[in-house]
Amino acid sequence: WCHEKMSENGLMSRAKVLTIDTMNPTVKKVEYAVRGPIVQRAVELERELSEGMKKPFVEVIRANIGDAHAMGQQPITFFRQVLALCSYPELLNDSTFPEDAKSRAHRILQSCGGNSMGSYSASQGIDSVRQDVARYIERRDGGVSCDPDDIYLTTGASDGIVTMLKLLMCGEGAARTGVMISIPQYPLYSAALAELGAVQINYYLNEENCWSLDITELQRALDEARLHCNPRALCIINPGNPTGQVQSRECIEDVIRFAAKERLFLMADEVYQDNVYADGCQFHSFKKVLFEMGPEYSNTVELASFHSTSKCYMGECGFRGGYMEIINMDDDVKAQLTKLVSVRLCPPVPGQALMDLVVNPPQPGEPSYDNFIKERTATLSVLAEKAKLTEQVLNTVQGISCNPVQGAMYSFPRITIPKKAIEEALDKGQQPDMFYCMKMLEETGICLVPGSGFGQKEGTYHFRMTILPPTDKLQILLNKVKEFHQKFTQQYS
Amino acid sequence: WCHEKMSENGLMSRAKVLTIDTMNPTVKKVEYAVRGPIVQRAVELERELSEGMKKPFVEVIRANIGDAHAMGQQPITFFRQVLALCSYPELLNDSTFPEDAKSRAHRILQSCGGNSMGSYSASQGIDSVRQDVARYIERRDGGVSCDPDDIYLTTGASDGIVTMLKLLMCGEGAARTGVMISIPQYPLYSAALAELGAVQINYYLNEENCWSLDITELQRALDEARLHCNPRALCIINPGNPTGQVQSRECIEDVIRFAAKERLFLMADEVYQDNVYADGCQFHSFKKVLFEMGPEYSNTVELASFHSTSKCYMGECGFRGGYMEIINMDDDVKAQLTKLVSVRLCPPVPGQALMDLVVNPPQPGEPSYDNFIKERTATLSVLAEKAKLTEQVLNTVQGISCNPVQGAMYSFPRITIPKKAIEEALDKGQQPDMFYCMKMLEETGICLVPGSGFGQKEGTYHFRMTILPPTDKLQILLNKVKEFHQKFTQQYS
Repeated sequence: WCHEKMSENGLMSRAKVLTIDTMNPTVKKVEYAVRGPIVQRAVELERELSEGMKKPFVEVIRANIGDAHAMGQQPITFFRQVLALCSYPELLNDSTFPEDAKSRAHRILQSCGGNSMGSYSASQGIDSVRQDVARYIERRDGGVSCDPDDIYLTTGASDGIVTMLKLLMCGEGAARTGVMISIPQYPLYSAALAELGAVQINYYLNEENCWSLDITELQRALDEARLHCNPRALCIINPGNPTGQVQSRECIEDVIRFAAKERLFLMADEVYQDNVYADGCQFHSFKKVLFEMGPEYSNTVELASFHSTSKCYMGECGFRGGYMEIINMDDDVKAQLTKLVSVRLCPPVPGQALMDLVVNPPQPGEPSYDNFIKERTATLSVLAEKAKLTEQVLNTVQGISCNPVQGAMYSFPRITIPKKAIEEALDKGQQPDMFYCMKMLEETGICLVPGSGFGQKEGTYHFRMTILPPTDKLQILLNKVKEFHQKFTQQYS
Repeated sequence: WCHEKMSENGLMSRAKVLTIDTMNPTVKKVEYAVRGPIVQRAVELERELSEGMKKPFVEVIRANIGDAHAMGQQPITFFRQVLALCSYPELLNDSTFPEDAKSRAHRILQSCGGNSMGSYSASQGIDSVRQDVARYIERRDGGVSCDPDDIYLTTGASDGIVTMLKLLMCGEGAARTGVMISIPQYPLYSAALAELGAVQINYYLNEENCWSLDITELQRALDEARLHCNPRALCIINPGNPTGQVQSRECIEDVIRFAAKERLFLMADEVYQDNVYADGCQFHSFKKVLFEMGPEYSNTVELASFHSTSKCYMGECGFRGGYMEIINMDDDVKAQLTKLVSVRLCPPVPGQALMDLVVNPPQPGEPSYDNFIKERTATLSVLAEKAKLTEQVLNTVQGISCNPVQGAMYSFPRITIPKKAIEEALDKGQQPDMFYCMKMLEETGICLVPGSGFGQKEGTYHFRMTILPPTDKLQILLNKVKEFHQKFTQQYS
């Protein structure tokens, strides 16, 4: 259009300064499936529906992203009361707000410059919030001590993860930093590694054994990687995204021993720490296990762990709250980290306030306690119910096989795609599971993410589906997936 | 400590995975004076004071950072009412909130998934907010059209600036991307360029002519840079930070012509667009001037302009709201930009909501209009008063010379440092103006940023001081600066 217009006006056509050929080549390599082409098409379909265009469905159901509130989950009343009080402190005089919400808001505002959430905080985060985070971690980990100086508040967990990866980048060619990530993985990792120009080292989770992590597979991946890069870090997501497994304590010990032996910086993505549903499963933090393994490990293994306000029972993604805890980091490096985060001034203060509430919720005896517990329990038990429902229904479909959703917010079932469909996809230059998901979107309005966006063993196909839609809608969605899969299989057989 | 402890336990001392020698070398090069060593010392001093330690002052006054609320500026009531309503929608039933605040909150919530600020937004930002931003720009620029698709909401302006610089990185050695920045500059630019590994090309503002921008100096800087890198972008801050000048329309036209002729991508940092105080000065957006220069320019020159909720009359830094407008960007690059921002999911939603209120404030006839205008006017006229006061008092001091603070929130006076003081500083391995500011902090509790953190012509010394403290405190602060300077000069003469 621009070119045409210029010609019309008789002006010389001039190449842009910034073109696809002259832009940052590492940015071009970035991919992020959770918001990729399938979601763009979902947005288009929603627009077409709203313009009255006829479709074989009446609404698009977004099961592509872990966005609980968008799927109707209600926020925790206490959290929102405190945020409203902090936003508009005039409300501190309003007698309809409970006293504990007021005292919490008062405490947060006192930690803000000029008693306003509109002030910048310290770049590492508000002191009192970091103290509350430290106490939360101590309670969670059965008393293992936590120093508020080791806590950095972040803009969601993503921000902390990218910052830590950035610190680790070093070397060129065969000395380039390599980072081990699970396959399947959450594509923030592959995207960040691509952008930073690091080597992505894939270790495969064992689908046959409930997406478990196998040390021999870690060793294989590491040994191969050592031939062409310098592996420096090992990333773990527990509970797993997209795979929904919850790691056993033994497995975590093995991983820590492996990291110690192989001198790898450990990064533990623990944003789903409250999302554990399966009987016999329990969340163990890497920090706790590390410290219970004794000083040989707790004094040496470098660990960063990440948490967020976006998941668990809160689902407050839009506030972009989060923290990371840094264990055994070299003091000079920590000073560099503090300097680095100062360039962006500070994480959003409402997100910091929310993080504070998450780690310091109403206590027994406080007026909001009962309601808080009721709301939290209700949200988590509905999620547990939906995790089970998803697994059950998907496993009734021939050609779909789904591991138990032990935790997190996703199922990642394996799907059988007929040979003819694979061929048609490849003819179109599409991954077979992208072809499958795109077709499902067009025919049913259900928006899933193809397994290829997360990585999977060659020749296997999957999709990621959140368990977040309300139970009745989830039931409909699962039935539609079932019908679609049967029809698709028939069509291409 | 760690090493000692290991020895005590008889464990083998083992080097860390991540050390200062093996961390990202570009991160080490990053510097950010606004939160540098002087601010760290200020924090220590505050702690020492609170612990009852005796100092020659009773409080630390932070004039180092443009953090209006921390200095006592009050938020706009309407903005905070709407944010409270959006945080806790139960309040929509509260009759004490004005109807226009409620309808604005209602509209924002309707644009959020599940009607909750806790949902992720589109990565580019909430549609309706981007539409409001576009209409705001059209009004501001006298009807020059603005497409909401060209608007990207950001996490403060810093986020947008770093993202744009990132896109521009390309090439190695003599083909490496170079970016022109003013000296003095806001150190976000130098920090981002260091981290990205780009070449920083300095062009000097003319202190003798009120920090004006001179095209011959741009040309000199560019021609020299072309010998060793590939200059691709030109960054302008208007109104200026740290220098407080407001660019004339003619100057902006010259810059645009220069960018067109030399094929440079223009980045206009316009976060102080409402902060114009001096008679005869007026804010002209680069967008408006570009479009009034006719299609030869408006169809070709690539421009990104940046705005934020942190400055102007709002001063809402903690919310990290902002937007950028992208003009004439290549479509493929724009698709890459959209993909890149999707990795971080979305800017904080409360910051997006606040940005919406800034671009769509109460209108005449609405219940909150009069109070909004009253509050905005009061804040801006107090700032204008303080800008004048700062300039006046500083210019009464022999050895300090201060250009008019035409806009923004800072004075950047030149200071004469006696030869003996320079020698003592250099002996200590300190920049002379760092030595000066550190001494002022220790003796008076006033926290300023040395000019060396922003860059300055060799052999000249400055400091940046915000005009944000309340008028009475600012008066005291200015007098203390005066006394300190006189004493310092005497001591080292």
